Amino acid sequence: MKVAVMGYGTVGSGVVEVIDTHSDIIKKRTGGDSLEVAHILDLRDFPGDSHEALFTKDFNDILNDEEVKVVAETMGGVEPAFTFTSKLLAAGKSVVTSNKELVAQKGLELLELAEENGVNYLFEASVGGGIPIIRPMSQCLAANNIEGVAGILNGTTNFILTKMIEDDMDFSDALKLAQDNGYAEKDPTADIEGFDACRKVCILASLAFGKHVYPNQVATEGITNITLEDVSYIHSMNGVIKLLGQIKYISDDKIAAFVSPAVVWHGSQLASVNDVFNAILVRGDAVGDVCFYGPGAGKLPTASAVVADMVDAAKHVERKKIFGWGAGSEDYVVDYKSEIEMPFYVRAKAQESKIKGTFTAIRFLNRIGQPSDEVAFITDKMTENKLMQKLEGIDVINVIKVTNY
Amino acid sequence: MKVAVMGYGTVGSGVVEVIDTHSDIIKKRTGGDSLEVAHILDLRDFPGDSHEALFTKDFNDILNDEEVKVVAETMGGVEPAFTFTSKLLAAGKSVVTSNKELVAQKGLELLELAEENGVNYLFEASVGGGIPIIRPMSQCLAANNIEGVAGILNGTTNFILTKMIEDDMDFSDALKLAQDNGYAEKDPTADIEGFDACRKVCILASLAFGKHVYPNQVATEGITNITLEDVSYIHSMNGVIKLLGQIKYISDDKIAAFVSPAVVWHGSQLASVNDVFNAILVRGDAVGDVCFYGPGAGKLPTASAVVADMVDAAKHVERKKIFGWGAGSEDYVVDYKSEIEMPFYVRAKAQESKIKGTFTAIRFLNRIGQPSDEVAFITDKMTENKLMQKLEGIDVINVIKVTNY
Repeated sequence: MKVAVMGYGTVGSGVVEVIDTHSDIIKKRTGGDSLEVAHILDLRDFPGDSHEALFTKDFNDILNDEEVKVVAETMGGVEPAFTFTSKLLAAGKSVVTSNKELVAQKGLELLELAEENGVNYLFEASVGGGIPIIRPMSQCLAANNIEGVAGILNGTTNFILTKMIEDDMDFSDALKLAQDNGYAEKDPTADIEGFDACRKVCILASLAFGKHVYPNQVATEGITNITLEDVSYIHSMNGVIKLLGQIKYISDDKIAAFVSPAVVWHGSQLASVNDVFNAILVRGDAVGDVCFYGPGAGKLPTASAVVADMVDAAKHVERKKIFGWGAGSEDYVVDYKSEIEMPFYVRAKAQESKIKGTFTAIRFLNRIGQPSDEVAFITDKMTENKLMQKLEGIDVINVIKVTNY
Repeated sequence: MKVAVMGYGTVGSGVVEVIDTHSDIIKKRTGGDSLEVAHILDLRDFPGDSHEALFTKDFNDILNDEEVKVVAETMGGVEPAFTFTSKLLAAGKSVVTSNKELVAQKGLELLELAEENGVNYLFEASVGGGIPIIRPMSQCLAANNIEGVAGILNGTTNFILTKMIEDDMDFSDALKLAQDNGYAEKDPTADIEGFDACRKVCILASLAFGKHVYPNQVATEGITNITLEDVSYIHSMNGVIKLLGQIKYISDDKIAAFVSPAVVWHGSQLASVNDVFNAILVRGDAVGDVCFYGPGAGKLPTASAVVADMVDAAKHVERKKIFGWGAGSEDYVVDYKSEIEMPFYVRAKAQESKIKGTFTAIRFLNRIGQPSDEVAFITDKMTENKLMQKLEGIDVINVIKVTNY
């Protein structure tokens, strides 16, 4: 079957490579059909590339090729990816993508368009890179009411935090190392401020609970405020700090969804996820906790997930996948700060006696080199708003959520 | 849609319970259809059960009910499950199962029969209980050549080993605790001798590489020889002992597959899998390592996987799943003892000097209370046959494989 690839960056070139090098297994999985790349869309030139003859700068070459039934969109960004994808679906072609920004912003519209036209829009590679998560969530856990999801969804920040935790490296040195290793972009904002994790939370929340959640509905906090002092206090109680996306079911009309650093205690499957790896934990009412672990990014892992979707789309040209992903609403995602109770880690310039007068049932933490006027402690479960009230008049240095995953 | 359940034991009654309690989410996932249990087959009586009117002792009540399109087989054992399943598939009904023994012995025949009759035979619940693994392996990783699979596939033995490692409990006390907690049967042979894990290895190997592997082809060793002394030596090097099923690709015509205790080093995702939890690690050439973690058994987790397959079968009555699972052959699974090189843990009554004369590049381990005439060490990579040659004349107490997962 003829296919096309739009965007020849890291993932797109990986897709072409995986199709080239895995024709045997692809044929086996489709039941005999192979994938043949007929067009590669990119505005750049790739002189000397072995696929030079396939390149085009004109999207219409793909749109108008009636033999092309499946297209991989690995361009990233909302436009022109959205326009191109819409036109392809309307023309009866299935589209598979690794573009989390587009799925998070326009997933609902594109899924509806795919359904109207009897084709598929698949996006396994948009969350967790090569980790199977979209299909397991929508199919394997079909007989569960999902209670919550928590994930380490961004490899760059997990690498930085791992270096801080294991090698005592401070944030800026760890960031620089991530950049030197090619794990972080020159402008690392989308990673370290949590925007990338936020998009993945939107996709997971939409899938888990069937209503579209948009990035601007998800309160998002990055890791730039995390210091080695926090790491050290939390380590003293056998915990680690991870950037987590968390989603909690409240009712059919209300969920909470937020991205933030969070304390994860030893014993959680999320605690041992290090370096650039990702993991997604899904809590179902029947199955309990299941966890999916693997490389969350990278050329070949992500490309292999895109190609697996292409195989699926090729195998089932006539059949639509049902994701049960409907419209959301403005008040669907609650203000977690007033609705969700959890324990918090607090570090402050204060004496223990002062804290004990304000909080009940807290545990104090220690670190080597702790100044005599500094305290760190874990609070009881409460809402973040209530915590902030209690902390009024206290010279707070840092506050980090504690997760129950 | 009308469905039936055969076998009202732990899993079967869980299936009925999940269908009863999850009708909303099931309707959502099927796209509007609900599952209605029309018959429950069991030779026992369940007086007072709320589904009493649905019970039958006559298999033909299910076979001859033309409205029943999907049947859950949760009887366990090869017969009469095999005969019943064959008749149902031949009659154009899809069958889903949690019966690992049947799938491991007769999977190929039943899949072929399903294909001939244009129906599905699904078995997500047969490996890893509630953990999604069959579908991710056959679909999500479709663009990978799988290099190997390693899994903690039996919750009972993992519970026993966890108690030995974390609570210093000896094997027989840990087994008794497992029995008291309902994790182990009165006759625990199938668990502690590795037979249960062996069946799951057969299913995973058949799926991963497309040729049926039978239980008698998989060398299987249980955990009854593991002692607290071994646990202690291995702990000193930051390792743990797990009962692993391991599968390794050698060529399209040859694989290795075996079940045995194995040393897993700290840092592996398998090392932190404790208690009755299971985990399956799949190594693909494009994706790298992905790992699936969750409850490997239990009424509702396993039942939820069965019901998810029922939803899938109900949604796609007309469509066959392609697993690419073909015939195997007698010499397909090699003798791993002569073909696979790995390091080993060895404990012996001997002096270090004697060991140093026989092995190169070894690391000695220590434990508290170690007798002066006892040594424990990790060997270089070699085949098990070569190891046994080298150990001739040495008074060996125990040998445990070291895994590279």
